[in-house]
Amino acid sequence: MAEKKVEAITSMEEDFAQWYTDVVLKADLIGYTSVKGFMVLKPAGYAIWELIQHELDRRFKETGVENVYLPLLIPESLLQKEKDHVEGFAPEVAWVTHGGLSELQERLCVRPTSETLFCDFYQKDITSYRDLPKVYNQWCSVVRWEKETRPFLRSREFLWQEGHTAHATAEEAEERTIQMLNVYADFCEQVLAIPVIKGQKSEKEKFAGAVSTYTIEALMHDGKALQSGTSHNFGDGFARAFGVQYTDKENKLQYVHQTSWGMTTRLIGAIIMVHGDDNGLVMPPRVAPTQVMVVPIQQKKEGVLDAADQIAASLSGLRVKVDKTDKSPGFKFAEQEMRGIPIRLEIGPRDVEAGQVICVRRDTGEKETLSIESLPEVIPQLLETIQKDMLEKARAHRDAHTYVAKTWDEFTDTVENRPGFIKAMWCGETACEEKIKELTGATTRCMPFKQENLADTCVCCGKPAKKMVYFGRAY
Amino acid sequence: MAEKKVEAITSMEEDFAQWYTDVVLKADLIGYTSVKGFMVLKPAGYAIWELIQHELDRRFKETGVENVYLPLLIPESLLQKEKDHVEGFAPEVAWVTHGGLSELQERLCVRPTSETLFCDFYQKDITSYRDLPKVYNQWCSVVRWEKETRPFLRSREFLWQEGHTAHATAEEAEERTIQMLNVYADFCEQVLAIPVIKGQKSEKEKFAGAVSTYTIEALMHDGKALQSGTSHNFGDGFARAFGVQYTDKENKLQYVHQTSWGMTTRLIGAIIMVHGDDNGLVMPPRVAPTQVMVVPIQQKKEGVLDAADQIAASLSGLRVKVDKTDKSPGFKFAEQEMRGIPIRLEIGPRDVEAGQVICVRRDTGEKETLSIESLPEVIPQLLETIQKDMLEKARAHRDAHTYVAKTWDEFTDTVENRPGFIKAMWCGETACEEKIKELTGATTRCMPFKQENLADTCVCCGKPAKKMVYFGRAY
Repeated sequence: MAEKKVEAITSMEEDFAQWYTDVVLKADLIGYTSVKGFMVLKPAGYAIWELIQHELDRRFKETGVENVYLPLLIPESLLQKEKDHVEGFAPEVAWVTHGGLSELQERLCVRPTSETLFCDFYQKDITSYRDLPKVYNQWCSVVRWEKETRPFLRSREFLWQEGHTAHATAEEAEERTIQMLNVYADFCEQVLAIPVIKGQKSEKEKFAGAVSTYTIEALMHDGKALQSGTSHNFGDGFARAFGVQYTDKENKLQYVHQTSWGMTTRLIGAIIMVHGDDNGLVMPPRVAPTQVMVVPIQQKKEGVLDAADQIAASLSGLRVKVDKTDKSPGFKFAEQEMRGIPIRLEIGPRDVEAGQVICVRRDTGEKETLSIESLPEVIPQLLETIQKDMLEKARAHRDAHTYVAKTWDEFTDTVENRPGFIKAMWCGETACEEKIKELTGATTRCMPFKQENLADTCVCCGKPAKKMVYFGRAY
Repeated sequence: MAEKKVEAITSMEEDFAQWYTDVVLKADLIGYTSVKGFMVLKPAGYAIWELIQHELDRRFKETGVENVYLPLLIPESLLQKEKDHVEGFAPEVAWVTHGGLSELQERLCVRPTSETLFCDFYQKDITSYRDLPKVYNQWCSVVRWEKETRPFLRSREFLWQEGHTAHATAEEAEERTIQMLNVYADFCEQVLAIPVIKGQKSEKEKFAGAVSTYTIEALMHDGKALQSGTSHNFGDGFARAFGVQYTDKENKLQYVHQTSWGMTTRLIGAIIMVHGDDNGLVMPPRVAPTQVMVVPIQQKKEGVLDAADQIAASLSGLRVKVDKTDKSPGFKFAEQEMRGIPIRLEIGPRDVEAGQVICVRRDTGEKETLSIESLPEVIPQLLETIQKDMLEKARAHRDAHTYVAKTWDEFTDTVENRPGFIKAMWCGETACEEKIKELTGATTRCMPFKQENLADTCVCCGKPAKKMVYFGRAY
């Protein structure tokens, strides 16, 4: 029964990177294309993104966000208006030089992000305090010409949402920046079952053009960090560069204060690397495209397929499928496991007679016999239990792989031998950050909102410490 | 009360094109950008697209469609694989020549449509009859370097969905082509309240690379036609060009048969031009981002805003807003009319006392007094009535502007003096089509599925007629 007819994948312990690639391909999430760094999101992969979109979009709208769509292409002169921003992005954009049969007078880049377009738009669309705030978001794809690429984690094109807001005051902009970070953190924990650390990026790591960047950082199964969402406060820097002004109630001209915030298909990579195991993907129920797979055993025997269909019908409101293909049960089991479907219900001729099914949890492998009539009540509860257990398991893993380093020796020893987050004190100087990165490969992930005083001196230079920081090697 | 504080728009009779542009801008659907032919879809415009997407996507999924996402960029060599296709699209694509700081070895075009990408993908993904059918769709934007551009109707970038399917047999492909055309026609009539003519495109007008193209054609208020959705049967032409083959049950290698079908943001232009009037947009309730606008009168008087909020709350399940801005009632009325919100509910202090509201239909201007307690029952019914009435009104207009021309004189006279569809007989020769277009500006819109025998000879050349055709000047 338990035979594996799906080709085996590399084990996580043996080679985590290869395991990841194997899962991405065998779970049928993506297909490679003939252009490096561009991938096809296949139905199983895109369906996860659709559920992520649906959940995030609902949460956005509850906070007053409105969706818009801005152009794909940015004139070079527009990209260059904000100095830090163009320095950050110009080296990695794709340039359109010809439209139809003629050369363009000005090159257009494929948007790597849309701050400049939103500023240009807001400059035209905002005149009075009555026009504020603008709380807009768009769902689209962006292109960044990365050298090294990996499915979901770093690709030349990816799907995302980018929120861009304009406010009358600095306080309101800061409030929105934090509000959206909280939406992201809550979404990750409640929907993706991924616990995150909330904090602020260092000067070195912040977004090109931002006054401050906030981030949520998650820990993958291999102990590496993944930046999972960011929210930026731009102050009035972009507004000054683009002349985005409004007249206030006293009829004075003021610059707006702006924010932006984004989440991407990278989250699918996070789901894989936080929850997956040696049998493949393990999907949190709330974003599982299929939540329950009913597998009929000896399906040609009378009554089996009918019973399977009736079970599926009785679970209305859930995402349920019946695997009626002519594959062997063992193959079907392995396939359902590879795709990470949270619950499998097995039903054979004897089960039909006994009015029962075998119920198998994907996350723990636990099996139990359930009466068919109990399913409409038990299965939704079980999905909730799985969702909670997956979050707790991920949190326990994260906590067990979060270390404290008070000295440089402790720091280097931990980086080398105990992959995970390292909490350490920092003087606040970019020089120390750069030295740590050069010598250990670990970067400052964030200065967490929840600060602790672990020591009085910087773990690197020994000067007085200003902040506790989460360090880690990262994707 | 009825004073118009929203700037007046050009009347339809005076200048239909200017009226259209005025509505698009004053109803706040789009914003122009600094790149010609690229526009911003503002919240009011994008919200319509979201509702269209939601409704269409649901209908697609009911027929077994799965969503995917394919890359934005197509290598030049891939675009060139199918001869007719490249001839059709190469003159109007945008070319990416540089990625990051270096020139690309091969130019990449921004997808104008994704047949070539889907073929490349299917060639890798399909091996056996077990892999068929593939019934995939993607929601994305495409770029076509049009010379003349108009908001929604013809822009250099637009949003759309493109379905691409692969089947084992020619019959199955043809069946899917027609099935999706029917989904489109039903969607237009039931959701957009736009009646359409279903039929086949002539050889001259069919899609580059297709064996046959089917279309739905709608008639705008000014008597011009608008192609509103197309569905193409490719036969095995693309499959042969790209080598998309499968082994059948007898283990023989076969080419797949393919289809594609698409609808775009152009539909928003159709809604405007079919239903709009001199006060602005008139939205069919099923795609109206706001279905009911509650307008409080003398809103500072005690109880008015509370009553307005209670009314909105009592209409849960509908898309309702309360206009609490400090604008005058007249201004609010004009704004609600400009945006085409189907129902306006006015409530002032005396109405609160009497437990009633004034209910105004946007489509007819009809006013009636309704008791507040009846609203949860009456308003949903009224929205359904409006939806039906709008379809019937559009159908009556279309039928009243559909003419028959049996002779060349009748044909030219009708084109010049009675804008609308012209039904006429045709010999089937491209030469006649071209002559008619050159002399009158009218094109073959389609050979309708419902054929009639109006005469025995071609309206142009007098040779024996083969088909009845809908002719018309078109957008």
